[in-house]
Amino acid sequence: MASQLEQAMARAAASVEAAIDRLLIPTVRPEAPLWDAMRYGALGGGKRLRPFLVLESSGLFNVAPDHALRTGMAVELIHCYSLIHDDLPAMDNSDLRRGRPTVHRQFNEAVAVLAGDGLLTLAFEVLADAATHPDPSVRSALVMALAVAAGPSGMVGGQMLDLVAETTSFDLVETTRLQEAKTGALIRFSAEAGAILGGAGPEERRALENYARDIGLAFQIADDILDVEGSADAVGKPVGVDAAAGKATFVSLLGVEGARAEALRLADRAARHLDLFGTRAANLQGVAHFIVHRNA
Amino acid sequence: MASQLEQAMARAAASVEAAIDRLLIPTVRPEAPLWDAMRYGALGGGKRLRPFLVLESSGLFNVAPDHALRTGMAVELIHCYSLIHDDLPAMDNSDLRRGRPTVHRQFNEAVAVLAGDGLLTLAFEVLADAATHPDPSVRSALVMALAVAAGPSGMVGGQMLDLVAETTSFDLVETTRLQEAKTGALIRFSAEAGAILGGAGPEERRALENYARDIGLAFQIADDILDVEGSADAVGKPVGVDAAAGKATFVSLLGVEGARAEALRLADRAARHLDLFGTRAANLQGVAHFIVHRNA
Repeated sequence: MASQLEQAMARAAASVEAAIDRLLIPTVRPEAPLWDAMRYGALGGGKRLRPFLVLESSGLFNVAPDHALRTGMAVELIHCYSLIHDDLPAMDNSDLRRGRPTVHRQFNEAVAVLAGDGLLTLAFEVLADAATHPDPSVRSALVMALAVAAGPSGMVGGQMLDLVAETTSFDLVETTRLQEAKTGALIRFSAEAGAILGGAGPEERRALENYARDIGLAFQIADDILDVEGSADAVGKPVGVDAAAGKATFVSLLGVEGARAEALRLADRAARHLDLFGTRAANLQGVAHFIVHRNA
Repeated sequence: MASQLEQAMARAAASVEAAIDRLLIPTVRPEAPLWDAMRYGALGGGKRLRPFLVLESSGLFNVAPDHALRTGMAVELIHCYSLIHDDLPAMDNSDLRRGRPTVHRQFNEAVAVLAGDGLLTLAFEVLADAATHPDPSVRSALVMALAVAAGPSGMVGGQMLDLVAETTSFDLVETTRLQEAKTGALIRFSAEAGAILGGAGPEERRALENYARDIGLAFQIADDILDVEGSADAVGKPVGVDAAAGKATFVSLLGVEGARAEALRLADRAARHLDLFGTRAANLQGVAHFIVHRNA
């Protein structure tokens, strides 16, 4: 029987799936391939971890569920766009994602570039819409925070560092900075979104920031371990890729056991950052450990 | 001697150039190629027509120059990102833009994808920043309008239609719809931005909308004429491309003379839409004709 956490994650994933399905309306007009590709890239799977963090952090501050869901959808659109562009032949050149052909394999490369651009732009349309929050200063703050997290000083910059890492040996400090930008920034936004939506005070906000920084890094360390120990079937994409490319990862820098210990240490610390919220933060605390123990 | 309009356009272009230069701070960190590529793609030329429209429409409503400039910069970042992605091998596969190698030729394809993503994301960061307007409802309205104009129902959708048009014969209605999305939507946003920033009334807003729709189409018709009659040196990129691809354009659908007459008709009508603003709209009226008579 699924744990309470797993049930909550499954419910959140279903809500986000349905919300994206309603947003990306299928069309029969000539530009249909664009919408089909956006739907293909944004629907049908994924853990929806980032929206889950938005929903749970929103729950700490009694944010209206609709507002949290729309914000979670926006961050998921950004995440999905980044996967589409990262998979492109000029980038990671991946054929498989979540066990299915990647967008450029299913459609073509031009459509994949545009589908990514479209999802990225839609994310900001979703946040700026009054349906996301009645207070425009909250909407502006969300747009600002997501743009910083996703842009050249955040996720896109991390992706650039990832390209540089293919031809340069990164040490632990550089690898940490790479991952904090590439995956950490969006995870941080997700955990902080509830605080923005709910007008949280500085102490609560800082607790979520610290939590998010730790789980973001733990998430990436677990990813690196999966790349070494996971099965391609479970992960839904090829494994062993980084090792084959000779790229520095937390596993190559710390060893498998050292990486696992560090991920656990971070998960424990992340959970403790949320002690001030009491039992309301139980799911967020649980997800910190889920991230480390997942097998996909 | 340059006309008053040309002087105003040159001043606006210089302001935008300087503002983008200040925004995209060169960096020596490992992700430097990303920032170099964004600077390369966003600086060093272009007519800066869209920011000019933002500045001039803002002038009608006594908008603070700094607010207008930041909004103009945001729309130019979107325009520049779209050029970088459109030039990619999988899209138009262009080697030359404004007389220089395109971003993916100067850097590489992966960096070009990321530079486009970065500029697109930065545009929304610029708009959401309090420096763009003290009223967050204005900032949210700008984000919303730009996202709609640039997204899958606007520019990105138009780019998709452009791909479809390579293998399908489009008639005049379809070609008009393609161009209204691909280039028109961003031009409309630019002309309406002043009304959003200045809190214009519905009549003034409608006048700018009508003006923008007409000059957007006139702009694209003039582009199609340049593709047939222009010189590659002046235009800064290869000409005759659409004709060689057998793609429907306003010239192939209306003939050169028919297209020219239609562009002039639209420019005249566009200028008349602004009569209610009196002489304050002289530059906007002038630019409607400039668009038709330009040689680059």
